[in-house]
Amino acid sequence: MGDLIDDVIVTPLEIILEDNGSVMHALNNSELVNNNFGEAYFSSVNYRNIKAWKCHLRMTSNIIVPIGEIRFVLLDMHNDSKSGQKFFEIFLSKSNYKRLTIPAGIWFGFQGVSKNLNLLLNIADIPHDPDEVRRKKIDEIKYDWSIK
Amino acid sequence: MGDLIDDVIVTPLEIILEDNGSVMHALNNSELVNNNFGEAYFSSVNYRNIKAWKCHLRMTSNIIVPIGEIRFVLLDMHNDSKSGQKFFEIFLSKSNYKRLTIPAGIWFGFQGVSKNLNLLLNIADIPHDPDEVRRKKIDEIKYDWSIK
Repeated sequence: MGDLIDDVIVTPLEIILEDNGSVMHALNNSELVNNNFGEAYFSSVNYRNIKAWKCHLRMTSNIIVPIGEIRFVLLDMHNDSKSGQKFFEIFLSKSNYKRLTIPAGIWFGFQGVSKNLNLLLNIADIPHDPDEVRRKKIDEIKYDWSIK
Repeated sequence: MGDLIDDVIVTPLEIILEDNGSVMHALNNSELVNNNFGEAYFSSVNYRNIKAWKCHLRMTSNIIVPIGEIRFVLLDMHNDSKSGQKFFEIFLSKSNYKRLTIPAGIWFGFQGVSKNLNLLLNIADIPHDPDEVRRKKIDEIKYDWSIK
């Protein structure tokens, strides 16, 4: 999956099994970056489909995948002059139940891996603002998205 | 579904369809009660299973159901001397995609309605604190939970 990129954080989360369901942690206020809650929203991505690439100029994303499986690919631009582009890849799901914190300034994309619903929750530190998002077409950053 | 109980709020939420998935709103900071973010967690409930009853002494819950269908039953205790217990019932799902805000002091329970995964997200205004929750056994508040 490659080395972790600076300031990207992967946090294991707890799942509490109960007789009639389960409780799955996401994020509490002491874990908020800069103590800011901006917005929470869901995003789904269909099987094999890819949502890429975007880069937030100000938003820190805290991403959790409670259903399905989603592949995230992050690109560390700081590193591209020396040794080429440095990617970090991680597959999140209930089986690998972790929170992925992506700071501003990181290009990233994601892909649906399960044939059923693939859903992420993003708890962001600022509310949605289209002016703070940069986008590239998928082919503008080369990556092998094939699913093995 | 009965009349709305005082201070319980039902807010329609937006779903934005995209080619490769969708984006589903949950809550932004301007919609937080008292401007407080406490904790976000998921809770799942199996088909026909019931999680009831509980009452938070301090927590306001903001509940969203992105997958499956969950029946919520809320009890207005303020009203029980005059006309008997007053219940409010609502079924939330992606088809009835709304946020249910339950203030402190309301007894409530919920039930899985879909045979597949029934999942709620709660964005609460305080972090989890077992001391601020009161519980009753399901039979201590009579309600017809049968699914038609």
